[in-house]
Amino acid sequence: MHAKEPQVQLPDHIVPRRVVIIGGGFAGLFAARTLRRSPVAVTLVDRRAHHLFQPLLYQCASGILSEGQIAQPLRAVLRRHHNVRCLLAEAAGVDADNRVVLAVTPDGGTLSLPYDDLVVAVGVRQSYFGHQEFAARAPGMKTLEDALEVRRRIYRAFEMAETCADPREQQAWLTFALVGGGPTGVELAGQIHEIARRTLDREFRTIDSSQARVLLFEGGDSVLTAFGPTLARRAERTLRGLGVEVHLRTLVTDVDDEGLTVREQGRTTRFEARTVLWTAGVEAPPFAHALARATGAAQDHAGRLLVQPDLTLPGYPQIRVVGDLMALDGLPGMAEVAMQSGAYAGRVIRHGVEGRAERARPFRYRDFGSAAYISRGRAAVRAGPVRVSGVTGWLVWLLIHIVFLTGFRSRLGALASWFLVFATGARRERAFTGEGERGHGAPPAGAGDRAGRDQPTADRAH
Amino acid sequence: MHAKEPQVQLPDHIVPRRVVIIGGGFAGLFAARTLRRSPVAVTLVDRRAHHLFQPLLYQCASGILSEGQIAQPLRAVLRRHHNVRCLLAEAAGVDADNRVVLAVTPDGGTLSLPYDDLVVAVGVRQSYFGHQEFAARAPGMKTLEDALEVRRRIYRAFEMAETCADPREQQAWLTFALVGGGPTGVELAGQIHEIARRTLDREFRTIDSSQARVLLFEGGDSVLTAFGPTLARRAERTLRGLGVEVHLRTLVTDVDDEGLTVREQGRTTRFEARTVLWTAGVEAPPFAHALARATGAAQDHAGRLLVQPDLTLPGYPQIRVVGDLMALDGLPGMAEVAMQSGAYAGRVIRHGVEGRAERARPFRYRDFGSAAYISRGRAAVRAGPVRVSGVTGWLVWLLIHIVFLTGFRSRLGALASWFLVFATGARRERAFTGEGERGHGAPPAGAGDRAGRDQPTADRAH
Repeated sequence: MHAKEPQVQLPDHIVPRRVVIIGGGFAGLFAARTLRRSPVAVTLVDRRAHHLFQPLLYQCASGILSEGQIAQPLRAVLRRHHNVRCLLAEAAGVDADNRVVLAVTPDGGTLSLPYDDLVVAVGVRQSYFGHQEFAARAPGMKTLEDALEVRRRIYRAFEMAETCADPREQQAWLTFALVGGGPTGVELAGQIHEIARRTLDREFRTIDSSQARVLLFEGGDSVLTAFGPTLARRAERTLRGLGVEVHLRTLVTDVDDEGLTVREQGRTTRFEARTVLWTAGVEAPPFAHALARATGAAQDHAGRLLVQPDLTLPGYPQIRVVGDLMALDGLPGMAEVAMQSGAYAGRVIRHGVEGRAERARPFRYRDFGSAAYISRGRAAVRAGPVRVSGVTGWLVWLLIHIVFLTGFRSRLGALASWFLVFATGARRERAFTGEGERGHGAPPAGAGDRAGRDQPTADRAH
Repeated sequence: MHAKEPQVQLPDHIVPRRVVIIGGGFAGLFAARTLRRSPVAVTLVDRRAHHLFQPLLYQCASGILSEGQIAQPLRAVLRRHHNVRCLLAEAAGVDADNRVVLAVTPDGGTLSLPYDDLVVAVGVRQSYFGHQEFAARAPGMKTLEDALEVRRRIYRAFEMAETCADPREQQAWLTFALVGGGPTGVELAGQIHEIARRTLDREFRTIDSSQARVLLFEGGDSVLTAFGPTLARRAERTLRGLGVEVHLRTLVTDVDDEGLTVREQGRTTRFEARTVLWTAGVEAPPFAHALARATGAAQDHAGRLLVQPDLTLPGYPQIRVVGDLMALDGLPGMAEVAMQSGAYAGRVIRHGVEGRAERARPFRYRDFGSAAYISRGRAAVRAGPVRVSGVTGWLVWLLIHIVFLTGFRSRLGALASWFLVFATGARRERAFTGEGERGHGAPPAGAGDRAGRDQPTADRAH
């Protein structure tokens, strides 16, 4: 393409090093930031125009935050990075020998992006462990689209319960199943509990929203396993205290239109739950497989790419994989790992350009801890040897998120939103749209496929 | 359905009068509010769970306001109206003789809603004057889904321009066509102008966003016809001063994938514009036709129902049509008309219950004026004989909207959002999602249908 290259101040005879970053999440963004003052020409490619603050995605799903509060346009965030150009396109493949990335624009056009250094930061997508058919029934929580779909399902479930004649179906609509006991599953469970008991209090005439059941299914021995056994136990106690039904060592074997089937302690049980949300696994996206094929790189069981200690692919020192897609020493797919690995990649590239290309130190992750919000006044925070939970944990959680949210305005706005929810339970971002419907009356997907359902046709209340 | 009836305090032998209100827009909401203390059992049915503040829909589309700021859940707004129950369902038809409304829930279940009084407040939908095929190419601006689609198209157009190799296609992506010169079209034109010149300033490396062309096509003799000739002329001057290309007495004859064709002064011209937005006409939704068939009511050219002076349908004194769908004395489809007609219907029903059922006074609309926002510091406001424009108009416009927005919190939030935009041009709600895509990688609709487009395959910048 004849697109203008980013502006870089160099003597005319020097050609700036081209860095292509695929992915504008934490890893890609921090790589770009670290290269800010380097004499390199950076191209950041993402199939979405925004940077997503994933740690708070569950709050967009639960109606506390709007999309704009957790997703900022990449080109706005990088506006003053004059050596970065942002392109809306999806990376399709890599010609690793000729050092070219092939990308596709939303309307099907193709772009060729040559590089001297490539930073692969595409992240991972929700995994259904081979059961792709579950995806339509049980939305994940990795993207903005996911969050809006989850929001729609949560609030719509209460609406559906309100119009139900059959008590059993009504209860099924008031039953929410979360698959996966990591931070996202735990946070969502807490949110649905608060929505049912506080936000929707006294809004319904037929149902009692507080009768909602929240089921949390986890295949391992504990929730929040990554937080260590002490916090995991406290979190489980908190959840059970809220009334969340926690099922550990439980595998989900099927998800259908009306509920899900699980295997727990060798026994198979079916639960009727019209809303099933899936946060149980992640896997590499198609681009990762294309990259592995092009470079011969090895992948782990989830498709993540195994990298050298300096985050490069074996045999391809110009290609680094960072963030969630990177498989190194069992590092978890967390925001903090993504930030640090992305910044590391940027630093190494910068040193290379500055002539400090001595053998790069290996990447070393500094674990500053993790935080998960369970419920109002209760969170779990782990920082080094420090473990805090309860109200203290909640305050620390608040502080951490305020600091890390991008932009002062976002922080102020999010703080205001949180305060409102804490004080009143009101969630301001509850509006949900019809599935894919526009104002001209195209029927929503799914309407009519339950026609003739068992409903009395006359209201005989009088 | 055996759903519990709303709670009404009456002696046991008295059965509360059942009022069914179809539609939770301004008309339906004001009808419900007016019935607050009446001994009636109100059922409010809407196919969406939210009340939409349509006058500010264009600000959601332009990325200033989030969905939650202009759409509040109906059952939250009516939480303290203990005689109202809200049901998420779409009215499909009416058995006018047996006085029953038939409605369909989102999953295809059916509801029968008997009534003693029926208030039809379903509104209208965007009309393409018989050219339904334009709808997919040119989104309207009547619903929340529309606004999000418009937002997606506006911001994505600039992204597409940035990756274009062909200068002509690039310019086509930077060309925005608005069909319809009423308040919504004018407001959107002004918003796109501001986005191009202020919001996106310096965010792009290839394109200059301020080179965007905004075309406004109007079939009549002036924009903002309903505001009278003085304000219409001023608004036109303002628009042209901003660089908006205003085409009056122009009819759009075709909309295709790459642009639109118009007939102006007997001459046919084609404009290449990848973003076409349609606000040119409205028409009755299918339910209106079903109602007309059931009652023999007459409809105007747009399908609106002709009502008696007391807003009832001839021969059916229990059925009132209010708001945009009502055809009476040429009253326009505006928020103020909807509010007043809805309140009138509620009042008449209340008087009937209170035994004051003497011949109802006819509905008389009190025209307090209209306001339209054109651009930063410029709006047009008409109130009785008063005509204000420019900065004064803008301040009055601001005041009116603050007063009418539902809820103090909304006003404060919207005020903060507007102040931010006014001061900095920053629009906080720019995040747009892929069309119907979720995080598991289902391809967005439309990808690939332009594969093999004329793009150089090698970046030869060096």
